[in-house]
Amino acid sequence: MIAVAKRDKKKYASIQPLIELTQHDMLAVNQLILIEVGSDVEMIPEVANHLISSGGKRLRPMITLATARMCGYEGSHHIALAMAVEFMHTATLLHDDVVDESGLRRGKSTARTIWGNQASVLVGDFLLGQAFKMMVDVGSLTCLTVLSNAAAIIAKGEVMQLATAKRIETSEKEYLTVIHAKTAALFSAAAEVGPIIAGCDAITRSALASYGISLGLAFQLADDALDYGGSSKDLGKNTGDDFREGKITMPVILSYARGSQDERLFWKKAMEEGNHDDDALETALMLMKKHQSLDDTIKQAYYFGEQAYRALLPLESSRHKDALIETIDFCIDRIS
Amino acid sequence: MIAVAKRDKKKYASIQPLIELTQHDMLAVNQLILIEVGSDVEMIPEVANHLISSGGKRLRPMITLATARMCGYEGSHHIALAMAVEFMHTATLLHDDVVDESGLRRGKSTARTIWGNQASVLVGDFLLGQAFKMMVDVGSLTCLTVLSNAAAIIAKGEVMQLATAKRIETSEKEYLTVIHAKTAALFSAAAEVGPIIAGCDAITRSALASYGISLGLAFQLADDALDYGGSSKDLGKNTGDDFREGKITMPVILSYARGSQDERLFWKKAMEEGNHDDDALETALMLMKKHQSLDDTIKQAYYFGEQAYRALLPLESSRHKDALIETIDFCIDRIS
Repeated sequence: MIAVAKRDKKKYASIQPLIELTQHDMLAVNQLILIEVGSDVEMIPEVANHLISSGGKRLRPMITLATARMCGYEGSHHIALAMAVEFMHTATLLHDDVVDESGLRRGKSTARTIWGNQASVLVGDFLLGQAFKMMVDVGSLTCLTVLSNAAAIIAKGEVMQLATAKRIETSEKEYLTVIHAKTAALFSAAAEVGPIIAGCDAITRSALASYGISLGLAFQLADDALDYGGSSKDLGKNTGDDFREGKITMPVILSYARGSQDERLFWKKAMEEGNHDDDALETALMLMKKHQSLDDTIKQAYYFGEQAYRALLPLESSRHKDALIETIDFCIDRIS
Repeated sequence: MIAVAKRDKKKYASIQPLIELTQHDMLAVNQLILIEVGSDVEMIPEVANHLISSGGKRLRPMITLATARMCGYEGSHHIALAMAVEFMHTATLLHDDVVDESGLRRGKSTARTIWGNQASVLVGDFLLGQAFKMMVDVGSLTCLTVLSNAAAIIAKGEVMQLATAKRIETSEKEYLTVIHAKTAALFSAAAEVGPIIAGCDAITRSALASYGISLGLAFQLADDALDYGGSSKDLGKNTGDDFREGKITMPVILSYARGSQDERLFWKKAMEEGNHDDDALETALMLMKKHQSLDDTIKQAYYFGEQAYRALLPLESSRHKDALIETIDFCIDRIS
């Protein structure tokens, strides 16, 4: 909150400018997705459409499209790259649901509860395979390097998270490493392949890659706070999903670090042993309030949002740049 | 058995010549695997080493190494390509175990029973990510096209198999399509990237790709027969694994197609409903004998083995070519 005061911030940040600037290209992405997913194996489009239509904002492919156009790209390879980015993300979601044993995502049943773990694993693999094929078809070794590095980092981050999962002693630093890999790496790759395919200079490329990293971190931290209701007093209907699944996120890490012996025992039981009585979520929220854990998570999100903003400073003004900046605020403002 | 009589076949085919010709390069592959798998995330080397040390023959990377050298390649990119091929295979095994809910592989506990589905899914993804990264590092777009096509085909084949799984009405043709995708596509890619990286002509490249396809089909059909004891009278300790897991393979498809109404009912119950009393496997073996289903599966394996042999005819004689030919017989002779 402090950080953003430094610049002229709109009162209600919106993702609308990004949507409008990319909507023509997004139609092409959607058509390509329908073609690529419209396999002769019936189950693939069923599962994939379920996921694609389940209300994600599709931020990542929009970022690829916007950064390519911002850099003056007039070809069509950015469509395939945006699709590849979205497929990588969707595959990760499918595999995550198996790993987390999730029953709901954004209030809807997950693919695994409808089609089973098997379909989630294999359709995820199918989407990864298609993503890989599309990227190769584009034929840019530099894009391939960026995206394959991201794929390797994401996968490593997932295993890392599994190893630290339910470990209440996870430090802030360890957690930032996990979300750097799990979330920020793909945002960064999504933002970097735009300037690459447009043939941009190294400065633009690294500015946009940095923007992606910081935006990804801000986005994830905002998401962590949002799962506990953010700074609003009204809890959304999905509040506490992370808590019930025993996911160690930033608000929990901060509360544990700042907690008394008794409080630590509470967190240990709740997160590591899944020991939830009816009042556990209320206790968790009370402790987060006591230690300002949600506020501080949000502050961290603003800090990385500011970094994302600063990363774009070297780039000349454009509608695309403005939309990318407003997207930062949109990602964070969801909380309050 | 008829088909191979046409050519001069060794009495006891061995994989030893292939092992000897590639052993120097395989040491380099092993070193590279240790580096790539030796992640700072503890669980990754644990799971991967379990799988790598579990007694696979590592046919696929040896084929990549042999075809590259056979084509006169003197560089070192074939090492990374062989590793990528092995990682793709290992990732598939890890994900297959989750999908099949397997408890044993080659008589050893599967990764999923030791570390859980989560680790199997995620370490599989990690190996895929590393494979992808290694291939991109090699920098050959043609190799990338071949391997990414294979990855997409394999993943599609897996979903296809899930859709047909436990469907006793699966036809011979449908099943051949499944194993073409699930097994033969990777054998083919493994054999094709060798000549590509060596800069070979299109004829050599397509000859080796065809060799790989046919070898893969022969290998899988031999495996199917072997799971029911092959043509030997002594059943191995893992006999009937496919049966118990309800996997529809060629011997079952042939027995069902040739069976009476009562027999079909038996297969339906056994494979679709998993209705196994103690004598079920014995009944299955008896029916396979009655309808010569194992013999005919083996005949099909020999047929594709012969195709693999014929694919190599245009290539000039070499120790590598001889080793690849003997490998065909080795894959099939395991049965008898």
